[in-house]
Amino acid sequence: MILLFPGSFDPPTCGHADIIKRASQLCDKLYVGVLVNIKKQCLYPVEKRVEMLRRISAVYSNVEVIAFDGLLADAAKKFGADALIKGLRNSADYQYERDMAQINMALAGVETLYLQADQSRTAVSSSVVRELLAFNGDVAGFVPECIIDLL
Amino acid sequence: MILLFPGSFDPPTCGHADIIKRASQLCDKLYVGVLVNIKKQCLYPVEKRVEMLRRISAVYSNVEVIAFDGLLADAAKKFGADALIKGLRNSADYQYERDMAQINMALAGVETLYLQADQSRTAVSSSVVRELLAFNGDVAGFVPECIIDLL
Amino acid sequence: MILLFPGSFDPPTCGHADIIKRASQLCDKLYVGVLVNIKKQCLYPVEKRVEMLRRISAVYSNVEVIAFDGLLADAAKKFGADALIKGLRNSADYQYERDMAQINMALAGVETLYLQADQSRTAVSSSVVRELLAFNGDVAGFVPECIIDLL
Amino acid sequence: MILLFPGSFDPPTCGHADIIKRASQLCDKLYVGVLVNIKKQCLYPVEKRVEMLRRISAVYSNVEVIAFDGLLADAAKKFGADALIKGLRNSADYQYERDMAQINMALAGVETLYLQADQSRTAVSSSVVRELLAFNGDVAGFVPECIIDLL
Amino acid sequence: MILLFPGSFDPPTCGHADIIKRASQLCDKLYVGVLVNIKKQCLYPVEKRVEMLRRISAVYSNVEVIAFDGLLADAAKKFGADALIKGLRNSADYQYERDMAQINMALAGVETLYLQADQSRTAVSSSVVRELLAFNGDVAGFVPECIIDLL
Amino acid sequence: MILLFPGSFDPPTCGHADIIKRASQLCDKLYVGVLVNIKKQCLYPVEKRVEMLRRISAVYSNVEVIAFDGLLADAAKKFGADALIKGLRNSADYQYERDMAQINMALAGVETLYLQADQSRTAVSSSVVRELLAFNGDVAGFVPECIIDLL
Repeated sequence: MILLFPGSFDPPTCGHADIIKRASQLCDKLYVGVLVNIKKQCLYPVEKRVEMLRRISAVYSNVEVIAFDGLLADAAKKFGADALIKGLRNSADYQYERDMAQINMALAGVETLYLQADQSRTAVSSSVVRELLAFNGDVAGFVPECIIDLL
Repeated sequence: MILLFPGSFDPPTCGHADIIKRASQLCDKLYVGVLVNIKKQCLYPVEKRVEMLRRISAVYSNVEVIAFDGLLADAAKKFGADALIKGLRNSADYQYERDMAQINMALAGVETLYLQADQSRTAVSSSVVRELLAFNGDVAGFVPECIIDLL
Repeated sequence: MILLFPGSFDPPTCGHADIIKRASQLCDKLYVGVLVNIKKQCLYPVEKRVEMLRRISAVYSNVEVIAFDGLLADAAKKFGADALIKGLRNSADYQYERDMAQINMALAGVETLYLQADQSRTAVSSSVVRELLAFNGDVAGFVPECIIDLL
Repeated sequence: MILLFPGSFDPPTCGHADIIKRASQLCDKLYVGVLVNIKKQCLYPVEKRVEMLRRISAVYSNVEVIAFDGLLADAAKKFGADALIKGLRNSADYQYERDMAQINMALAGVETLYLQADQSRTAVSSSVVRELLAFNGDVAGFVPECIIDLL
Repeated sequence: MILLFPGSFDPPTCGHADIIKRASQLCDKLYVGVLVNIKKQCLYPVEKRVEMLRRISAVYSNVEVIAFDGLLADAAKKFGADALIKGLRNSADYQYERDMAQINMALAGVETLYLQADQSRTAVSSSVVRELLAFNGDVAGFVPECIIDLL
Repeated sequence: MILLFPGSFDPPTCGHADIIKRASQLCDKLYVGVLVNIKKQCLYPVEKRVEMLRRISAVYSNVEVIAFDGLLADAAKKFGADALIKGLRNSADYQYERDMAQINMALAGVETLYLQADQSRTAVSSSVVRELLAFNGDVAGFVPECIIDLL
């Protein structure tokens, strides 16, 4: 089974790292797909986000980090993904994802699988990390150690 | 990948049939596991529920229907399941499943994957079907046609 | 427009009275329908619940209290209701009602309209009133004054 | 009964069309009100949104499409609406609408009625349609066929 | 400030122990109140639940374990509690507690304060522990070590 | 016990005033902390928001209004707060606050206590008041009378 884990990863968090680890154990090949969205202003350029994710994924032999633009449904088809894989942190995530799954199925017949986020990390999101960075807060424990020097 | 789809299936619904179809396409082997819970009184005996699920699964060569008792975590290990697979119909399902996933991981290291239920069938549950049957309501459209003569 | 407001009303609360008042102002005829469910044990017999609701509805000339058994969808057709009317107190109500609306539409083509419950009364439910009565708690403010002598 | 169905409709979707159809069957007169919000940048000018809604509503003799600015509560009074009518797609909608209903009641004594959105269309929103249009995705099935040439 | 932490504690869990620890640090005196509900059948008699909680609370000098029956609002007044203290594990807890807080304020002017449950323990509940015990599952990590020999 | 009630208060509402009143009765000292966020554009300058809150708090001898910038966790430590105090209006608030509580605990060991918002005021928020002001709507009943001349 080939899975695609899509996201902005601006920056990747311990929560993302947890999903990469667990998803990689369940499939033959896991693509971690960095969404290049020219309309959304990101803190880190896509090249840096890809580099961060490559460091995080380095220990998993079946994980490949890629960047993609356009519709997610098209990317899934291009990489031959049998399904998307996403993490669910809370009810708000769930409700958003329920709609997204329906849309990706309607547009491209792409299935979406979900893992529950590690409950001890549900408060951790890229936006929280960006907020902490803006106020010189300590992000250790929120992002994987191997990317802290890139932040 | 080997998946286990557990449930009471009392009786199986079109929603269950949808998950079986979609999950079977994503894995090498799908076990549909009927929970034998001596504490919970069911409308149909476990043998009948197994028969209903076998009819529903007959067209998928990689699906096997089994019955199990005791803890779900133990059943997952016994059948060599890499993960459980469940459907999410609504936020209430999500919240319940979030706890269940955490408990099954803590007890037996068993991962749980989720599919979003087909949105046109989210109102369909076994308890709704039992309620309709009690009042001679029409259950066509709520349960797969192939099991209606068994109800 | 003819509306049917169904429920167990065991007993009716200030929340129910609020829906009756507001719904009666929006339609030509409002039926308040007491569900006779032989499987569910009620604190008050159906005759008493009907009497309580008649007192509450006495000031509204277009409201009629009736009792019904069987499927709600059948009752709606019998009374010529254009739609059911229900109150929504919280997200749990919403999620339950979303499924019920879908089922009643599928079974009998019956539409369901909703009013938001008066926010100052969202904690008031028949089960809270029953609990208070069991412990000799004060139910004034939770049920309409005109039925207190019937409790 | 006169109802007002307010919204931005930027653009109208199949979900909006479904509410228009169902609401028009429940009332004597249905106003579909396009909110002119000079602070919110819309993809389509208000005239075009009105035209789209007129095409969608053409088959219903009791539906009139109008535009309004200012507070919704004032518009409801101006058009003599007995109540607002809205669709509920999910819990997030519900929670937002619960507050809006309370505010419109407090400001202008305007009642709000709700219909549950067609469950097979809950993922469809104007923002999803705009996103699809931005990436040249296929919006058939998300918007009524009669307005596709206007997009 | 005097706080009262009420519950069934059948049996107490690591989640309860976490609330006791954190609440005791915020007040002068913390009562842990075991609800004696003759209508609800419990796995452990009230004396045993009190003993379990006394072991858990032994290290906190300002915590006292008591049993109470009747309405919670009455118990709060009897023990001179300035407020109740409860833990919130998830949205379902939140919604239930919102109503309970409103009722206790209406009945007895008793305020309720909330702590968010430790997110790594949100799946742990007394009912999960009872379920595990029924199937000889391992409850270590779900209940405090000091009470395991009492289960 | 020293509590800190943080917020933007742009402007303060009747809901905020209710939390200030109730929290002040539960602690020795209550700081009402106005967040100075240079990234977020506010309708009222921080000095005016502080003045509004001082009027609202004037009757409570143990309440002090202060302004702070930077991370909330740092402000809590600076003012010696034993805990933050927040109001919960609805499930969306709850879910957001659950994450914030976890982050403030992780960053600075700061505990957070919650009160349920007065249910008759859950629809009232600063953003609703700003919206009403923009359209010359009547804000009486949404903000404390003592600050209306400052709006």
